[in-house]
Amino acid sequence: MAETIGFIGLGSMGAPIAANLLKAGFAVRVYNRTASKADALVKAGAQLVSSPADVAQRAGIVLTMLSDDRAEEEMCLRESSFVEKLGPDGIHVAISTISPDTARRLAKHHAEHQVHYVASPVFGRPEAAASKRLWVCTSGPAEAKKKVQPVLAAISQGIFDFGADAGSANVVKLCGNFLVASAIEALAEALTLAQKNGVKQADVADMFGKSLFAIPVYQGYGKQIVERRFDPPGFRLALGLKDIKLVHETAASSATPMPLASLLQDRWLSAAAKGRGNLDWSAASLGVAEDAGLK
Amino acid sequence: MAETIGFIGLGSMGAPIAANLLKAGFAVRVYNRTASKADALVKAGAQLVSSPADVAQRAGIVLTMLSDDRAEEEMCLRESSFVEKLGPDGIHVAISTISPDTARRLAKHHAEHQVHYVASPVFGRPEAAASKRLWVCTSGPAEAKKKVQPVLAAISQGIFDFGADAGSANVVKLCGNFLVASAIEALAEALTLAQKNGVKQADVADMFGKSLFAIPVYQGYGKQIVERRFDPPGFRLALGLKDIKLVHETAASSATPMPLASLLQDRWLSAAAKGRGNLDWSAASLGVAEDAGLK
Amino acid sequence: MAETIGFIGLGSMGAPIAANLLKAGFAVRVYNRTASKADALVKAGAQLVSSPADVAQRAGIVLTMLSDDRAEEEMCLRESSFVEKLGPDGIHVAISTISPDTARRLAKHHAEHQVHYVASPVFGRPEAAASKRLWVCTSGPAEAKKKVQPVLAAISQGIFDFGADAGSANVVKLCGNFLVASAIEALAEALTLAQKNGVKQADVADMFGKSLFAIPVYQGYGKQIVERRFDPPGFRLALGLKDIKLVHETAASSATPMPLASLLQDRWLSAAAKGRGNLDWSAASLGVAEDAGLK
Amino acid sequence: MAETIGFIGLGSMGAPIAANLLKAGFAVRVYNRTASKADALVKAGAQLVSSPADVAQRAGIVLTMLSDDRAEEEMCLRESSFVEKLGPDGIHVAISTISPDTARRLAKHHAEHQVHYVASPVFGRPEAAASKRLWVCTSGPAEAKKKVQPVLAAISQGIFDFGADAGSANVVKLCGNFLVASAIEALAEALTLAQKNGVKQADVADMFGKSLFAIPVYQGYGKQIVERRFDPPGFRLALGLKDIKLVHETAASSATPMPLASLLQDRWLSAAAKGRGNLDWSAASLGVAEDAGLK
Repeated sequence: MAETIGFIGLGSMGAPIAANLLKAGFAVRVYNRTASKADALVKAGAQLVSSPADVAQRAGIVLTMLSDDRAEEEMCLRESSFVEKLGPDGIHVAISTISPDTARRLAKHHAEHQVHYVASPVFGRPEAAASKRLWVCTSGPAEAKKKVQPVLAAISQGIFDFGADAGSANVVKLCGNFLVASAIEALAEALTLAQKNGVKQADVADMFGKSLFAIPVYQGYGKQIVERRFDPPGFRLALGLKDIKLVHETAASSATPMPLASLLQDRWLSAAAKGRGNLDWSAASLGVAEDAGLK
Repeated sequence: MAETIGFIGLGSMGAPIAANLLKAGFAVRVYNRTASKADALVKAGAQLVSSPADVAQRAGIVLTMLSDDRAEEEMCLRESSFVEKLGPDGIHVAISTISPDTARRLAKHHAEHQVHYVASPVFGRPEAAASKRLWVCTSGPAEAKKKVQPVLAAISQGIFDFGADAGSANVVKLCGNFLVASAIEALAEALTLAQKNGVKQADVADMFGKSLFAIPVYQGYGKQIVERRFDPPGFRLALGLKDIKLVHETAASSATPMPLASLLQDRWLSAAAKGRGNLDWSAASLGVAEDAGLK
Repeated sequence: MAETIGFIGLGSMGAPIAANLLKAGFAVRVYNRTASKADALVKAGAQLVSSPADVAQRAGIVLTMLSDDRAEEEMCLRESSFVEKLGPDGIHVAISTISPDTARRLAKHHAEHQVHYVASPVFGRPEAAASKRLWVCTSGPAEAKKKVQPVLAAISQGIFDFGADAGSANVVKLCGNFLVASAIEALAEALTLAQKNGVKQADVADMFGKSLFAIPVYQGYGKQIVERRFDPPGFRLALGLKDIKLVHETAASSATPMPLASLLQDRWLSAAAKGRGNLDWSAASLGVAEDAGLK
Repeated sequence: MAETIGFIGLGSMGAPIAANLLKAGFAVRVYNRTASKADALVKAGAQLVSSPADVAQRAGIVLTMLSDDRAEEEMCLRESSFVEKLGPDGIHVAISTISPDTARRLAKHHAEHQVHYVASPVFGRPEAAASKRLWVCTSGPAEAKKKVQPVLAAISQGIFDFGADAGSANVVKLCGNFLVASAIEALAEALTLAQKNGVKQADVADMFGKSLFAIPVYQGYGKQIVERRFDPPGFRLALGLKDIKLVHETAASSATPMPLASLLQDRWLSAAAKGRGNLDWSAASLGVAEDAGLK
């Protein structure tokens, strides 16, 4: 009989990930605040439950994909949570992007219920989630990581292990989002320089996407910036700003000066202040153009 | 009979490029201030001449690979220069990294002698030059670009055309170097954040080099930063700083605010001030670690 | 009979402020975690009590001068706090530097006990506190501000009113500390530029202190930077960093990009990372010199 | 008989300075490209000449107040310049704001004609020039400085000596303009933070202008920023940007990382790109408000 996996959080990332678990042969019990978002999954075979605790079975595995630190904390620390239900030897795999400190706090909390916390934030947009091309960074107790390996393998193209500390995988996830946001800022400045000096942005983006920077990060964002195509969002700017703030806070609490992260925070704050929170997060590039007097 | 190409500037980049011209079947006349640097090329069939003008033949093609704007200007504007010798219908292909303004000034000067100026700065380190894996961005008169196409094809894996303006290819070259330096800064900050939060730098660099950033720029510099291996230099920091200054000057003269370019200039200036001008330019990353109190 | 004022927090700022209340004729009841710090005040006529709640009398006035947001919160929100003791019509005057959000939260909490919260953070170093040369910015309910006016007048040379919102005075206090830190950074960069260009720093600081910038902020910090005299601290760097973080957080939560505040946070973080937390906060200037390769 | 002083450059600063020389009893010979600008001075007793060289008399003193490095160079290095006319023992007092390098180059050039170069850039706006409240920083040969002391005393409220090097006074002038621009940026960010947090900008500017920052730089610019009153300009933004670029170039050529100067250059570049070159240079503050989404 198929192993049952609990899954909480069916947003634009969570839904396709849960679908991949079904495809891989797992039985999946799902919970979402807005139940209607589970319709397609239920058709595909998932079982919809009406309380978050009900996704869990003793000593089982539960994945959560929630929007931020507070959502994860509320889900885990509430009365009669799924964590208590998981009981001894259960495993909570948090694939949300949250701060390393929150991850460590949750791991400590879970330990009181003898539940293992495995941090497993993922890289990739919804379409990458749908096509099983996510990248996972993971950290937590070795035994638990071993048990959830098939689950993570079912939703990703690669898993990278960062040891036992619950916070480590989240540090790496923040590093990655920081690198991507840095590439967006760099592209925006380079393409603005080109335009202000009479060189076609599209030609520049095309060249770098085919030569030195032939990877989706540069190709995709380069194209979006050139075409100013930020709607519908692949990753909402308001969420991207949240992640950049997490980078910045983690830097501040570890006494790590990161002037580029500071620059990014100011750039994305400005985009939010200008009302661009619901556009794709690469819309922060508009600020570069505006600062240069371009419309 | 083989077409003869003139070549001035046999530094760590120029020498392997000239060698590839020989391999491609061109006859090559070379000049270098320090003549001994031509020894290997002469053995390989190049003809060494004793004055820069002597590399040129009327209506022929001359490539220059010199260290900076001043070197290009001195070579081109001197009495009895190779430009005069090229005379009507000759073509000067400048593959050096210089400012767009200098390129435009040279193009104007050359036009007085009916010599075509083709800007063709290249991307790649010496080993890429040796293995014909350079990327070329080119701009200048269409006719002339067509004529030199086989020459550029003999030294590179790809050529990108940016139109007629002599300065455009140089704008693109500056954009590219800016993107690379931005990636170095981003990597240095991310890896420092990892270390300060207890995550092994090597593991982080390894993951990103295999997933989101699987390109030589991130793989190579990631590794160098982790291993603090900056000597011998692939690209001298002092030269890198020169290029970053060109980016910054071009930004300033075109009223393009580029806060990330500003950050890079300050970072690289600091490395120079600390005596690291002869290390690889990724040694600027040491400043990030030092600012975070790491030794 | 003299009005009795409660006072909690006898650090380097609190002690001289309480002393001025005594000098002005108020009866003063003091509490401090380390009771011995009250010795001089007791000799001068203060009454030392053994629990924070005991400084308060119903409908009276209590001043607190504590090190940070957490200390204020713990003092106010604990069981049997001085706030409860103040009861209906009491006034809590918080002269600590805390975040506007914390101030607003406290005001709301106090209202439940019908206690008025008057935010009154002060500007000035310990010697200014001793000589009654502090500047006060205040906000809170009009009636309450009127009642505490004589108290604030007894400890300062000027009071500025910013309306009814409990958070406003703290916003202004953060603005002020930001302006001072900005002046320190500007001085450090200017003086480093002078030195690297062969001009004596002392002469430069002297000129500006006597001409365009003839105010203590520039005169005092200019001198400290030139003489590299950071010990003993007038204002500990670790506390200064705390305030800069508050500025930065307030900026982030109000969608206000402040690149200069970001620069300051990175500069002060670096100083902390280098082990300078117990020096005067102007020791952050050493980072400017080090980045320029100066010892 | 009154000593005769030559004066070149009757802009908004030069004209009132020349007027003060007349008031002090000097005979003044003036030259300006647009002769009509000399009308008021001629009425006041100045002698208008039709070529720049004619302001000079052998072994006399000539002051120049020109807009930038190029204008000074063209005036000094042209055929039959006033420098040649000054001949042995003449003194050129350059009160323009130019780069230290240009000053040193001019000093060297003048030495060939045995003319002394005294760098004496001034601080102050046109109204300060008119009321003799300028501050002068000076450097050059001791003897020459002694001779021109009464001249400088006639136009200023204070003179500060920075030694023999022709470039030193200009380094100090750049330091000063950098400090002022830094104060503008700091004020703009602080006042924007206030507004975004519901505190009246005018109240904040008023408090700091009366307490910690009770000097004209903060009082005047604070008021301008609050009232958004940038026209007519006291100091044109395009000229201010020129000075900030000089700061930045001097920093770059002396390997001095100045992140705050970089921030300023990007801020002022943006203002220029947005078409604000003819407003007062404090109009750069509009960029801070715009980045925060304020109109």
